[in-house]
Amino acid sequence: MKIYGDIRSGNCYKIKLLASILDIDHEWIEVDILAGETQTSDFLQKNPNGKIPLLELDDGRCISESNAILNYLVSGSALATEDAFANAKILQWQFFEQYSHEPYIAVARFIAKYLGMPEERKAEFESKQADGHKALKVMEEQLAATDYLAGDALSIADISLYGYTHVADEGGFDLSGYPAILRWIDRIQSHPNYVAMV
Amino acid sequence: MKIYGDIRSGNCYKIKLLASILDIDHEWIEVDILAGETQTSDFLQKNPNGKIPLLELDDGRCISESNAILNYLVSGSALATEDAFANAKILQWQFFEQYSHEPYIAVARFIAKYLGMPEERKAEFESKQADGHKALKVMEEQLAATDYLAGDALSIADISLYGYTHVADEGGFDLSGYPAILRWIDRIQSHPNYVAMV
Ligand SMILES: N[C@@H](CCC(=O)N[C@@H](CS)C(=O)NCC(=O)O)C(=O)O
Ligand SMILES: N[C@@H](CCC(=O)N[C@@H](CS)C(=O)NCC(=O)O)C(=O)O
Repeated sequence: MKIYGDIRSGNCYKIKLLASILDIDHEWIEVDILAGETQTSDFLQKNPNGKIPLLELDDGRCISESNAILNYLVSGSALATEDAFANAKILQWQFFEQYSHEPYIAVARFIAKYLGMPEERKAEFESKQADGHKALKVMEEQLAATDYLAGDALSIADISLYGYTHVADEGGFDLSGYPAILRWIDRIQSHPNYVAMV
Repeated sequence: MKIYGDIRSGNCYKIKLLASILDIDHEWIEVDILAGETQTSDFLQKNPNGKIPLLELDDGRCISESNAILNYLVSGSALATEDAFANAKILQWQFFEQYSHEPYIAVARFIAKYLGMPEERKAEFESKQADGHKALKVMEEQLAATDYLAGDALSIADISLYGYTHVADEGGFDLSGYPAILRWIDRIQSHPNYVAMV
């Protein structure tokens, strides 16, 4: 299988981290968004929404959306669960990530780190802070009660949220007020198959 | 089971529509967001993220995030699939919905329909139009090729996207340029168990 991604992107790194944890053989194809490589007609045929990450199977079929890819890769593995409620809680965290976490924390990081905080986007950066902290508080509350987001064991919910949370400081979010999140980050980083973002 | 929701909200209506299609017995509890009913300590205990829809099982366990709830309710039903790739494509559409569709189409509709298009949010309303149309084009391309989003049969991917697409005109999106979407809306509305939004 081929994985198209940009390794500095949290959405793409999620896939790299899970592939490492599950020891999944794959070819990583680095894609340059700023050079327009997600908008070529070739790429749009694979993902009409023009975004990475993208998973291409050996038979040519493709899956986009980072969290859908995680669910595909995990299925049948030791990290998967067959319990409908447990699965729903994992999905709950993944939809929370895309709706209530990524649009604030990832976008603030993008403005600060990639764009170098241009004057005309400073107000937007500032406007992301309150909602980003709201998302971190929701995580903190859960992680003060359980070691991992969906309970006592690592799941793809953790991989999804880890992607941008562990680099949240690059978006201006000071994690020192979130001790349970910091312990959870340590826990993930001590996984024997852990691989860093860059 | 109890479902907490506001029936005019597309995210909540998704659950009502699936419950009707699958004939799931439930108690609907209407929640008034504008009156702060999602921010009471009672409600925050059920969903620390303070949002509806919310599913409460008879044993008190809760699931939030509309699309996680749909996945929970569908599991084991005639509408579910066991195939990992088919499941991933359904999830792909649901994450697309939350990331590339709802933030534009639902928010534009909220500003126009609920808030009555106040002058100070007109620019935000306008800024939603291009990305909303981009999402509709991605759907149109798929629905020109297959009857439903994830293939030839109705799935919860359709229920998710139908929620706000069928009322997109209330957000200023003229659907007459999307003939495949219009046929798909008709197809869903002709389901024997179809229930309208209000
Ligand atoms: N919801 C998507 C978001 C992916 C996304 O936003 N990808 C960015 C890079 S991090 C991208 O490809 N942007 C290019 C574009 O939108 O043109 C996911 O989880 O995969
Ligand atoms: N990602 C969530 C979005 C839910 C959502 O935004 N719900 C709105 C009503 S449509 C809400 O409860 N807003 C109240 C608030 O945010 O305080 C889902 O799919 O369930």
